[in-house]
Amino acid sequence: MLEVILPDGSKKEFDHAVTPMEVAADIGPGLAKATLAGEVDGNIVGFDTKLPEEGTVNLRLLTKKDEEALGVMRHSCAHIMARAVMRLFDGVQLAFGPTIEGGFYYDFDLEHKLSEEDFPAIEAEMKKIIKEDEPFERIERNRDESLQVVKDLGQKYKIEHIETGLKDHASMSFYQQGEFIDLCRGPHIPRPKAIGAYKILSVAGAYWKGDSNNRQLQRLYATAFFTKEDLEAHLTKIEEAKRRDHRVLGKQLDLFSINPLVGQGLILWSPKGTIIRNLLTEFVGEQLKKFEYLPVVTPNIGKVDLYKISGHYPYYKDSQFAPIHQAEDEEYLLKPMNCPHHIMIYKSRPRSYRELPYRLSEFGTVYRYEQSGELNGMTRVRGFTQDDAHIFCTDEQVEDEFRKCIQMTQYVLSSLGLTDYRVRLGFRDPDSGKYVGKEAVWDAAEAALVRVCKNMGITATAEAGEAAFYGPKADFVVNDCLGREWQLGTVQLDYNLPSAERFDLEYIGKDNQPHRPVMIHRAPFGSLERFMGVLIEHFAGAFPLWLAPEQIRLLTVSQKFDEYAQKVEKELLAAGFRVSGDYRPEKIGAKIRAAQLELIPYMFIIGGREMEEEAVSVRDRIDGDLGSMKIPQAIEKLQEEVANRVVRQVFKGSAGLGTSGTATTSEGY
Amino acid sequence: MLEVILPDGSKKEFDHAVTPMEVAADIGPGLAKATLAGEVDGNIVGFDTKLPEEGTVNLRLLTKKDEEALGVMRHSCAHIMARAVMRLFDGVQLAFGPTIEGGFYYDFDLEHKLSEEDFPAIEAEMKKIIKEDEPFERIERNRDESLQVVKDLGQKYKIEHIETGLKDHASMSFYQQGEFIDLCRGPHIPRPKAIGAYKILSVAGAYWKGDSNNRQLQRLYATAFFTKEDLEAHLTKIEEAKRRDHRVLGKQLDLFSINPLVGQGLILWSPKGTIIRNLLTEFVGEQLKKFEYLPVVTPNIGKVDLYKISGHYPYYKDSQFAPIHQAEDEEYLLKPMNCPHHIMIYKSRPRSYRELPYRLSEFGTVYRYEQSGELNGMTRVRGFTQDDAHIFCTDEQVEDEFRKCIQMTQYVLSSLGLTDYRVRLGFRDPDSGKYVGKEAVWDAAEAALVRVCKNMGITATAEAGEAAFYGPKADFVVNDCLGREWQLGTVQLDYNLPSAERFDLEYIGKDNQPHRPVMIHRAPFGSLERFMGVLIEHFAGAFPLWLAPEQIRLLTVSQKFDEYAQKVEKELLAAGFRVSGDYRPEKIGAKIRAAQLELIPYMFIIGGREMEEEAVSVRDRIDGDLGSMKIPQAIEKLQEEVANRVVRQVFKGSAGLGTSGTATTSEGY
Repeated sequence: MLEVILPDGSKKEFDHAVTPMEVAADIGPGLAKATLAGEVDGNIVGFDTKLPEEGTVNLRLLTKKDEEALGVMRHSCAHIMARAVMRLFDGVQLAFGPTIEGGFYYDFDLEHKLSEEDFPAIEAEMKKIIKEDEPFERIERNRDESLQVVKDLGQKYKIEHIETGLKDHASMSFYQQGEFIDLCRGPHIPRPKAIGAYKILSVAGAYWKGDSNNRQLQRLYATAFFTKEDLEAHLTKIEEAKRRDHRVLGKQLDLFSINPLVGQGLILWSPKGTIIRNLLTEFVGEQLKKFEYLPVVTPNIGKVDLYKISGHYPYYKDSQFAPIHQAEDEEYLLKPMNCPHHIMIYKSRPRSYRELPYRLSEFGTVYRYEQSGELNGMTRVRGFTQDDAHIFCTDEQVEDEFRKCIQMTQYVLSSLGLTDYRVRLGFRDPDSGKYVGKEAVWDAAEAALVRVCKNMGITATAEAGEAAFYGPKADFVVNDCLGREWQLGTVQLDYNLPSAERFDLEYIGKDNQPHRPVMIHRAPFGSLERFMGVLIEHFAGAFPLWLAPEQIRLLTVSQKFDEYAQKVEKELLAAGFRVSGDYRPEKIGAKIRAAQLELIPYMFIIGGREMEEEAVSVRDRIDGDLGSMKIPQAIEKLQEEVANRVVRQVFKGSAGLGTSGTATTSEGY
Repeated sequence: MLEVILPDGSKKEFDHAVTPMEVAADIGPGLAKATLAGEVDGNIVGFDTKLPEEGTVNLRLLTKKDEEALGVMRHSCAHIMARAVMRLFDGVQLAFGPTIEGGFYYDFDLEHKLSEEDFPAIEAEMKKIIKEDEPFERIERNRDESLQVVKDLGQKYKIEHIETGLKDHASMSFYQQGEFIDLCRGPHIPRPKAIGAYKILSVAGAYWKGDSNNRQLQRLYATAFFTKEDLEAHLTKIEEAKRRDHRVLGKQLDLFSINPLVGQGLILWSPKGTIIRNLLTEFVGEQLKKFEYLPVVTPNIGKVDLYKISGHYPYYKDSQFAPIHQAEDEEYLLKPMNCPHHIMIYKSRPRSYRELPYRLSEFGTVYRYEQSGELNGMTRVRGFTQDDAHIFCTDEQVEDEFRKCIQMTQYVLSSLGLTDYRVRLGFRDPDSGKYVGKEAVWDAAEAALVRVCKNMGITATAEAGEAAFYGPKADFVVNDCLGREWQLGTVQLDYNLPSAERFDLEYIGKDNQPHRPVMIHRAPFGSLERFMGVLIEHFAGAFPLWLAPEQIRLLTVSQKFDEYAQKVEKELLAAGFRVSGDYRPEKIGAKIRAAQLELIPYMFIIGGREMEEEAVSVRDRIDGDLGSMKIPQAIEKLQEEVANRVVRQVFKGSAGLGTSGTATTSEGY
């Protein structure tokens, strides 16, 4: 006897194995018609998956209203896209076609070189297939039969996959829809008619199983939604993400460049980008002072021996630049992190308990060798500067220090309008023995992390087994204004590096005996490069006043007012503003458009009336004309906006695009 | 007939070859007795050197009063030291024994391991030799005879030197004094009695001809003076230099450390050193802003290809760290200088004449592989941060930019009490064709450099042939308070890197045509590490108030006043001071001594009367007790000293130790 508990708490009993669809039918024909898949005890299953014959299960029937059904439908849509491609082109060899965040793809090996021009035909063929509305049928076969199926189909990648990837599987499943059969775990939706709207987005090269030694395939990226409206909102979001692309804006606003002669993944910060970078480091610097950190400066290289002690070498060799081989016994590494250097400063003299917590901070530039395919503008680079610090403290001080780290990170992020985040706590797997440090110490530390987040009212999710072997951690996962997740700030406990096997750190306690400190690694931004990339996209290049490389542009209505404008320019410079004047012999409309395009926060327009009144006509990038202001009044208004680091952006676009910080809404800029 | 012109303009004629000593005797027996050597047409010669038989020569007779005689006497003293060593020890093989700045050395190969304990015996033997007062006799021999002499003496290094180093010499000279004969160019003084005072200073290892593949020798360092007073002044100066040794003070004051696990020549800036470093960079940063530089940030590495274009690779290969060999066609270098990176920023977009002068600045950390024997604390390192900038400008702008560079360097150095300097102008050798750039452009640039220095009233010495092949330059050579010379700031014109063969730089001129800019490299400090090392020695660790890592120490007379002192501490912190309190249960005298030892500029002493009057008793590191001051009054006094960056140091010691900056004299600290 099977007892099925439904989400509303109601129960149903069955004396034979049923599928979610059969349960739905038992409730009513309307629900059966709407059911696309099921969720059994938290796992997504097919509408046609047999439930057990005995025991109790919790069952949710998934319809178009449930987000979980979207992935199932998209995977069915991937099959339909593959089917369409096979109908339209000869000799198509199928590789893999999974769902991914926001859509799905399918990898093909075919002679015809796919291009955007093929998309309409493929989409039209998909429309036909959907209209035909043939059901998705699951077929289970044993190993030999399965191999025969794919051999009969002539699908060489599927043959290879059964022979290698699935070599331990005694049986496997296929999904058939009309003439199309694909080796597939499923699940799928019952029939294609639930697919409301879909779109092929792009085509790209990809290697079979991601290995560049294999043959290159053609990958079609696409997406699908239950409604046309959802698809359109999604496409708008993609457009918006494109508009905000920090690589494009970075070039357009002259914030940074990358030059192959210097090296891929190595950022050249232009003067304007450097202004923002320096303001960000000054801002963090204020916090470091407030929280009593001690800034230090250390070299960008260290002996390989140092990293042998720290354990970073040779274990992380693949993600590091090759060593600098100076002599047989003299090899250096570009430092992949700052901790060993800070530890050397800690060890440069004996330490007393009176010095703890000893907080060393550094904007330390480190180098890691990301694969070239992984590189992406400023967000995935090979050289980056961490707003790094290492706190050496006692076990008893961990909770307080952790609280302060969270406080600082929270303050730093929210000051930049990044207020939508959660904290992901990485704890140890209680069943594993791989962790360094005593169990009781871990328990206390993990409890402290939970307590701190709770007391601060922070949304924190604890994930067992997600801790590094050397200590529990807390990561800030930030949603930007497009709802995309970025892992930024991090706080990490470390029982490993201070240990006798590593750097054997000590302090002399009140009892005059040596004790071992614990280390905390933490970085509110994470990396200046990555953070800058995120900020550019978050603000779509329109930085708040305090960060804008150029804060005010003076625009003269005619050259008669240039002299007065230059006087105003000097006053503004003296008041600490970054300001320039547009004294070109152009129409005022053209000057305004130029300033808007360059995303200058404020335009001060100067004509006859302004000169007469010793005033400026203030135009706000966001709110437009603010009317005439006397110079001291304008200065005071803007100084206040700078001093309070006000974030007031307008985020264009619709679905999923909220506002952030103390954002205002208006017609936009 | 020889005409000899003496310094007073008087002339003497001789009809045969005479020596300086014979000329002296001709003038009078007193002068003959005093004569040690001669200077003929600017060249130092021996008292016994034959002058030509014909023509006219300018002759200066050198006595104890002439500095030039010191070197001749010291070289004679080196022979005497070698003679003493040979008398005292068996099997002594002589290597070389030249004079050096401040003294001389002699390298020996002998079985006995020389140590400080041997110095008194050697000095005593030297005394005996000097007392014996045997003359130094010059002996000239042809090649075969010479070889026979050193073979008879059994001096294997001398044999080797004749066979290799002197292989093109047909004849050579020896100097004999009693039983001691040495292969030697000379000149020497007539007799040892002129040696007033001498001292063996140290013993060290050294390789024959400086090559570490050769046998290690024992080097005795020593010095000699005409008077005991001069020797003592010199020894005091050495002592003072030792007391100021930045390596010792750096450790004692916890300013920096070097750890072999990180690497020799790589500085770990401790928190206290970093405070000074950051204040220095902020100070320069203010100047950069004033002079309208644009700060940028660039990576610490670049592709080897970049340095092939710049010409730094492979030509400077020996002084660079080995390349990072990432893949066959992918090699990186730690950047040995920042210019190629700044050039890449210049080239990241088209430039217009309106943007020039385009001044890119960076505190850029660079790496060069100095030989380990050359390394010295912070002053000779392998990784250092330049206060670097590159100015891209037109030929017409060079003079103005050069003036601004000189102004900034002058201001920066003199603000730190380094007011005793000269500017060394490196110009081209007009007879050489090795220079890049048009002759007229060089002429104009060199004339501009001279003009700027002249107009600014700066002592400048132009040295032809001292320019780099790519452009003329100006170096600031600074004398510290011990009178030692340091080459610090530099301004360098560059016609090479912008050239078509190198980076092919352009800007679009008013005429809408492409033109080539000239580059100026400049760094007022040179390197932060080296500058810091010089500053530590210059201030003997006692930094001026604005730079001191700890500015004020609060000292309580008893624990009754701790609460009030902590209130004062908070007020001082809020006023921006770096302050700490000594609340140990110690006597006030001990607390004062501790603060003096740590070179804290101000002590605020707090007892009953101070608490009652809401005051502090101010004690100055230099001037001692300044009496009681109300808190606001004390804050104002110190804030003013910080704001004006007052340098008021006391330099201990005697000979050669002047004061510098707005220094005051007093009993010292």
